[in-house]
Amino acid sequence: MSNYVIGVDFGTESGRAVLVDVADGREVAMAVHSYTNGVIDERLPGSDIELEPDWALQDPNDYLEVFKHTIPDVLAESKIDPADVIGVGIDFTACTMLPVKADGTPLCFLPEWRNHPHAWVKLWKHHAAQPEANKLNAMAAELGYDFLPRYGNKISSEWFFPKAWQILDEAPEVYAAADRLIEAADWVIWMLSGVETRNNTTAGYKAIWSKEQGFPPADFFKALDPRMENIVDEKMSRAIVEVGKRAGGLTEEAAGWTGLLPGTAVAVANVDAHAAVPAATVTEPARMVIIMGTSNCHMLLGTQESIVPGMCGYVADGIIPGYFGYEAGQSCVGDHFAWFVDTCVPAAYEDEAKSLGISIHELLEKKAGALTPGVSGLLALDWWNGNRSVLVDVDLTGLLIGATLATKPEEIYRALIEATAYGTRVIIEAFRNNGVPVDEIVGTGGMPDHNKLFMQIYADVTGCEVKVAAARQTPAVGAAMHGAVAAGKAAGGYDTIVDAAQAMAHLRDEVYVPNPAHKATYDRLYAEYLTLHDYFGRGDNDVMKRLKMLKAEILARTSSQGMGDGG
Amino acid sequence: MSNYVIGVDFGTESGRAVLVDVADGREVAMAVHSYTNGVIDERLPGSDIELEPDWALQDPNDYLEVFKHTIPDVLAESKIDPADVIGVGIDFTACTMLPVKADGTPLCFLPEWRNHPHAWVKLWKHHAAQPEANKLNAMAAELGYDFLPRYGNKISSEWFFPKAWQILDEAPEVYAAADRLIEAADWVIWMLSGVETRNNTTAGYKAIWSKEQGFPPADFFKALDPRMENIVDEKMSRAIVEVGKRAGGLTEEAAGWTGLLPGTAVAVANVDAHAAVPAATVTEPARMVIIMGTSNCHMLLGTQESIVPGMCGYVADGIIPGYFGYEAGQSCVGDHFAWFVDTCVPAAYEDEAKSLGISIHELLEKKAGALTPGVSGLLALDWWNGNRSVLVDVDLTGLLIGATLATKPEEIYRALIEATAYGTRVIIEAFRNNGVPVDEIVGTGGMPDHNKLFMQIYADVTGCEVKVAAARQTPAVGAAMHGAVAAGKAAGGYDTIVDAAQAMAHLRDEVYVPNPAHKATYDRLYAEYLTLHDYFGRGDNDVMKRLKMLKAEILARTSSQGMGDGG
Repeated sequence: MSNYVIGVDFGTESGRAVLVDVADGREVAMAVHSYTNGVIDERLPGSDIELEPDWALQDPNDYLEVFKHTIPDVLAESKIDPADVIGVGIDFTACTMLPVKADGTPLCFLPEWRNHPHAWVKLWKHHAAQPEANKLNAMAAELGYDFLPRYGNKISSEWFFPKAWQILDEAPEVYAAADRLIEAADWVIWMLSGVETRNNTTAGYKAIWSKEQGFPPADFFKALDPRMENIVDEKMSRAIVEVGKRAGGLTEEAAGWTGLLPGTAVAVANVDAHAAVPAATVTEPARMVIIMGTSNCHMLLGTQESIVPGMCGYVADGIIPGYFGYEAGQSCVGDHFAWFVDTCVPAAYEDEAKSLGISIHELLEKKAGALTPGVSGLLALDWWNGNRSVLVDVDLTGLLIGATLATKPEEIYRALIEATAYGTRVIIEAFRNNGVPVDEIVGTGGMPDHNKLFMQIYADVTGCEVKVAAARQTPAVGAAMHGAVAAGKAAGGYDTIVDAAQAMAHLRDEVYVPNPAHKATYDRLYAEYLTLHDYFGRGDNDVMKRLKMLKAEILARTSSQGMGDGG
Repeated sequence: MSNYVIGVDFGTESGRAVLVDVADGREVAMAVHSYTNGVIDERLPGSDIELEPDWALQDPNDYLEVFKHTIPDVLAESKIDPADVIGVGIDFTACTMLPVKADGTPLCFLPEWRNHPHAWVKLWKHHAAQPEANKLNAMAAELGYDFLPRYGNKISSEWFFPKAWQILDEAPEVYAAADRLIEAADWVIWMLSGVETRNNTTAGYKAIWSKEQGFPPADFFKALDPRMENIVDEKMSRAIVEVGKRAGGLTEEAAGWTGLLPGTAVAVANVDAHAAVPAATVTEPARMVIIMGTSNCHMLLGTQESIVPGMCGYVADGIIPGYFGYEAGQSCVGDHFAWFVDTCVPAAYEDEAKSLGISIHELLEKKAGALTPGVSGLLALDWWNGNRSVLVDVDLTGLLIGATLATKPEEIYRALIEATAYGTRVIIEAFRNNGVPVDEIVGTGGMPDHNKLFMQIYADVTGCEVKVAAARQTPAVGAAMHGAVAAGKAAGGYDTIVDAAQAMAHLRDEVYVPNPAHKATYDRLYAEYLTLHDYFGRGDNDVMKRLKMLKAEILARTSSQGMGDGG
């Protein structure tokens, strides 16, 4: 008799459950449920209340609906006896947070708060707390707090305290009414298990918590806003639990929603990218996992604590117990190619793709794949969406250099791919230069399935072998693996995530091996990339920022005039 | 009874005649004849002889065919009595040169030389004499000859002596068999009038001749190649005639070709861009004529001799007698937008243009015209085809900076137009900084008809009013005006080109006046352009050249392997 675990991955638009065989990690069944209210960025559901720009909310009920639909679906599809499901884990976008009452009820479920935007879930990409983030960063730097370097010297507006502070700033009554402010990841585990926990991964990466120092001291929060002095004790919890631990057993109510047995082990919550790491076979240092999707997320384990400039953060035990878990990122990868296809590909290419019966991405991959590195004469800086690591600067913009009248679309396309690979190499070298080794890359996410050229270019540019995780849904499988650890070996699971990974995580046979001749060419191009990277990114010529400022000025002026005054 | 003149404009693909009313410059009739053998860049006509890369030849018989077709055509169309045509002028691409016998017979007309590529006309865009140009420039600099600064410190491979030297280098027997090496412009006048003349415009701009110093001394040519020591006396002529003078009267034979009367005044030859200047009403300093087509050609008169860095050249009396005629250029203007439309405009835009019943250029102009300057956040360097003035560097390449995931095609399109306008402003400021004033711009060429946005942007970026020449075919009308001067006032024409221009040249009513708010924004963008211009163009970061060298290396390597080795 086999044992099974279920991992539920909460994404931006939908949630998906995967039912996995504990013995070998086989993905037996998968189900997706789209959030009814999706990303709420125009008006509150069931109301005329309009949201301001940069807001992005969600409805916590949508998360519960995911449980109610996807878990019964995978059980039905696989015909597995619920009694054979020994554990459940989840992973979530982060920081995605909400205000709730002491019993876990979201404020936005309550009629008196339902029409208040601040009562809803603030999704990770809610960017309206930028003023709070700016003030927080300035204050932390001014007062000399030592946590900033852990996060590339900048706390993002996406993270927990800027979002919490925005509630206090703009809706002190909501802040006051909230007994708890909590990550949605932890909230769904509370709803499944009846136990409020706070996982160390979101706390560490998104809420300035560290194993050694805990949260920033009350003095810091007081300096930000006296009303926030005791935010940790009043609205959060200092009891931070390591991912993989058992949060509790499934409640009767949640058993009713899901069709699973009450008491089924429920793991502490995790973050999507972080959950993917063991599912990509990585439980040791020097093997970088890159989640290659609309953006790149780089996850790496290290044995020692290092301040690596420009990382998103690092957390002791944040990915795998016993290691420092480092995270870095690139803001513009798949999005980059999507932009290119939407904006820059001529009709003739669409016709050609159609006549060949392939997608435009496939056609571009084919044409770009026929080019030898260096032969286009093009070089790009991959900053169409700013730069996360290592410059941590959202005001940087894209650059293409080397164009001639003979430049073809596929050459630009390839240059954009190469630019993201150079960006990854900058990150790898930053790790290496600060004592965190990187020897190989394991790719996961959408790109490995869709674009072999992309994978080969990453191998050729970085000089690392690039391998591919076998799991189709690495975050969900990782969440399921944590469910198996929460159940424990005695119950048919595993005692550690390392054991779980050994059995359940696999690589595909394909390996992208660096081509030495291409590597040699890319070494020269990378040197040029670095020069431009530093010239435009480190203050020698802040033209990108000045162009952005000018744009903002013009937009402000034309919008105050009520119309543009085009030439 | 009216008098008429005919101007014949010899372009790259065809020749066109315009019959013009001497009284007011009215274009009464126009006819075009395409060259049968066009641009010869693959194999010699009627043979299997293949040409090497960078070669571009023409067949001189095609020029005679232009006379034989277009002049009868305009006479027939206008029903003008040939006796009322008092003069003929021509303008030509330059340097476009050929080897001929003492009687004017092109070597390529002779059976013994017909299969020899070097016996044909070398068209202006024949670029295979680059090695000779490089050696010539190095030698001139080494020996300290003072003519280089007149030409932006660089003699182009397109010009007369590199082309002549290439014949000597590669085909000394052709060089020996040639009694004369002559500009095609002067050769067609010879064929019309029976008189060999050499016009001061091509001599001055393309053959290192100056009114004061004549040609470089024999010592210089001897230093290049002892066999070339006496090239001027052996193959050319020191009798240089000012444009607008009468070369002679139409021969009986040419009268037979054209239907004009024998003895009709034939003007000395001229260059296309230079002939256009008086036809654009400009016979005085400070009014810059820009021929706006696939490239920009900037023509300006000055009262004093100035070394303006990076100009194509200047010649005393080279455009209008009594003035120094300055020429500058930008290599990539209309070509730039054509590249963009072919390479970067998505299918959705083609569909939209189709549904609106307009061209894609019109759609882009409409969308780009609705944008306020500065609002795209984009900036480009207009070096897709290198930079002629003021950097004189063919190895520079295009750059686009400021792109984001929200960047739209029309924003890029507008940025490319703006970049060419910044490039023109660099040229204007170089003139001004060296004592050659520029107060207004008169545009001619294809762009003023096709793109009002382009014209307005030039006004807004330069701060100059931009006016438009009324003549539809300014070079041909200018050539016709020179025909009227060759005829002289006594014969119903004019005594000077200034008189001719006063009567025959007009501006359109439309004037593009700088918008002060846009000018203020463009001043800021221009400052950014200049910083990047100097950083990439003056040696701070030669990345563009290194990318080109890498490309050449890779191409050489892959072609020696017989194929690419794409990733």
